[in-house]
Amino acid sequence: MAAQPIPAKIAASDGASTIVISVDAMGGDRGPAAVIAGCARFAQKTPEVGFILHGPETMLKPLVARRRALHGRCEIRHTEDVVTMDAKPSHVMRNGKGTSMWSAIEAVRNHEAEVCISCGNTGALMAVSMIRLRKLEGVNRPAIACLWPSRNPRGFNVMLDVGADIRADGNDLLTYAMMGASYARNGMGLTRPRIGLLNVGTEEHKGRAELKAANELIAAAAPAGEFDYVGFVEGGDIPSNRVDVIVTDGFTGNIALKTGEGTATLIREFLKAAFNATPLSRLAAMMALTSLRRLHKRIDPRRVNGGVFLGLNGTVVKSHGSADATGTAAAIKLAFDLAQSKFSARLAARVASATLARQDTAVDEPGTGEDK
Amino acid sequence: MAAQPIPAKIAASDGASTIVISVDAMGGDRGPAAVIAGCARFAQKTPEVGFILHGPETMLKPLVARRRALHGRCEIRHTEDVVTMDAKPSHVMRNGKGTSMWSAIEAVRNHEAEVCISCGNTGALMAVSMIRLRKLEGVNRPAIACLWPSRNPRGFNVMLDVGADIRADGNDLLTYAMMGASYARNGMGLTRPRIGLLNVGTEEHKGRAELKAANELIAAAAPAGEFDYVGFVEGGDIPSNRVDVIVTDGFTGNIALKTGEGTATLIREFLKAAFNATPLSRLAAMMALTSLRRLHKRIDPRRVNGGVFLGLNGTVVKSHGSADATGTAAAIKLAFDLAQSKFSARLAARVASATLARQDTAVDEPGTGEDK
Repeated sequence: MAAQPIPAKIAASDGASTIVISVDAMGGDRGPAAVIAGCARFAQKTPEVGFILHGPETMLKPLVARRRALHGRCEIRHTEDVVTMDAKPSHVMRNGKGTSMWSAIEAVRNHEAEVCISCGNTGALMAVSMIRLRKLEGVNRPAIACLWPSRNPRGFNVMLDVGADIRADGNDLLTYAMMGASYARNGMGLTRPRIGLLNVGTEEHKGRAELKAANELIAAAAPAGEFDYVGFVEGGDIPSNRVDVIVTDGFTGNIALKTGEGTATLIREFLKAAFNATPLSRLAAMMALTSLRRLHKRIDPRRVNGGVFLGLNGTVVKSHGSADATGTAAAIKLAFDLAQSKFSARLAARVASATLARQDTAVDEPGTGEDK
Repeated sequence: MAAQPIPAKIAASDGASTIVISVDAMGGDRGPAAVIAGCARFAQKTPEVGFILHGPETMLKPLVARRRALHGRCEIRHTEDVVTMDAKPSHVMRNGKGTSMWSAIEAVRNHEAEVCISCGNTGALMAVSMIRLRKLEGVNRPAIACLWPSRNPRGFNVMLDVGADIRADGNDLLTYAMMGASYARNGMGLTRPRIGLLNVGTEEHKGRAELKAANELIAAAAPAGEFDYVGFVEGGDIPSNRVDVIVTDGFTGNIALKTGEGTATLIREFLKAAFNATPLSRLAAMMALTSLRRLHKRIDPRRVNGGVFLGLNGTVVKSHGSADATGTAAAIKLAFDLAQSKFSARLAARVASATLARQDTAVDEPGTGEDK
């Protein structure tokens, strides 16, 4: 059935040499062509990557055949159905077995691939990930972490949760802090990430009850968790260099993320209109083209494409629904970096050690893939 | 005591001819000089305005003397103390009687001025406003409404609450919708404002319990409230032309506001850096100067300066702590427009009629300054 079979199982067991990524080729706004172009772009630069592509074979086969970089490095796994953007998560949970999304997650569950990528319906992807991969021991609510353009030398910060769950109590927020620190360490190479808790003010007496609880829990967990806790941060600090990881509940995080994106889009439109206003300003825009591209590159949402689902037995990367080849390649790079650092195992060990610490059991098991 | 006494009480009772604004001249980051420069700038264009300025007379007198536009139109009301930016609201409530902020609010309480303006500590200003002006009958939680640059023909939308209270239940959100509609009608001249409720998705089943309750309450109140209810909106819709007024709780609204401001500041910095990168790009920036100014004007936070406290017996405008003369003048213009439209009385009538409607009493009293 596979067009370009690769020995996926061998590659996975062989670990070090090939990292296999499971790709849901369907469900994005631009169709499978953009997804496969992104795979090809990343494969060209990275010989150690292999793919399992999920979707209708008749559609995927010719698209793969056209990309030389993918020859011999792709297995196509045929599925008939696709999860649509407006599908209800509960419906997909009951009836989604034949979809490319389900199949893509299944490959991670079966240890055929290290990471799963999809640009489909976020709610459905989280729902299927939850029931097939299951929550990590010690995690009550999984979270979605996103990257945010920032003043940091790396160019972005991490924020979580941005929409997995609309609720989070003090303990959930502590888990987010632990998971965010682990993600920053393994996905971004920060040995000692700075964690901040999003609130409406930086004074200790401010905010809701769960935030005051989380403030104390996270501060207490910082030494063992090997991160620095900077305390409360405000909305204006999200893109700042005060902090690397911003912790919040999924309701607030989702509003902040979409507000930030909406503001950036508005300014981009206003900038365009300003440069289109007169013949002279259009001339100025041509002169300024290089500068404007330089700006665009720093706030290009495609560069920071890829929300990561944290707190499951396996890593799932959610690519943007409207991602093009560049955006998909960025999401694959993130997935690859996380797989290469054995992020899933390290995160699991880190959460487990935190759970143990909370039970006041001073057990420390080095060598089980701890997160450093 | 007054340097340039004006017959404030006569002006207030005479209403139509002079509108008196009570100005806390202290507490801003730039000191009273910026505040008084802003008053002078607005007074120059608006002969119908008069001011009561609150602060240390020895500081204010020479500043006023220097501004010809203010001669004969300003009363200085001497106070010794100033509320500092880091003062705790509870402390100011107990010990703030001798401050310029307290005195400025007192002038509204005593009907000497229509509106109070301050660029001081927001928390203290709300606390003092609450205890001196008291909540309007029918309002459980007052709110702060801000203006947001948008794609709307007017150039901005209204959002509330952006930080008066971190909690809001379904009924509070309904009150915010009523107050926001009234503000849009009287402050912005919109006869039939479009109201949206901020959530993490636009589907009816999404979001927290209080949002589902508010969704039904606001929809039911729309016909009598003479606004259009567009349902749930997302963070990306805040600057959109789908909606004129965005309703949310003060926690979420504050995070969204500061996230939006932070994003705009980041992009401004990146834009500057992009144009400073090379000699050629600096030349391009000079060419593009008019266009960049055009952009800057549309997203200039000074243009939309002025959060309004809604739900009190009297209107209080909070100007930005770092407002310069332009920013202060914008806040005064907002205060003046609201006073001229008899906003306080109309808002009170509107809230009262909504309270009556909720009690299923079909009483309608035209002529009591209803809000249209």
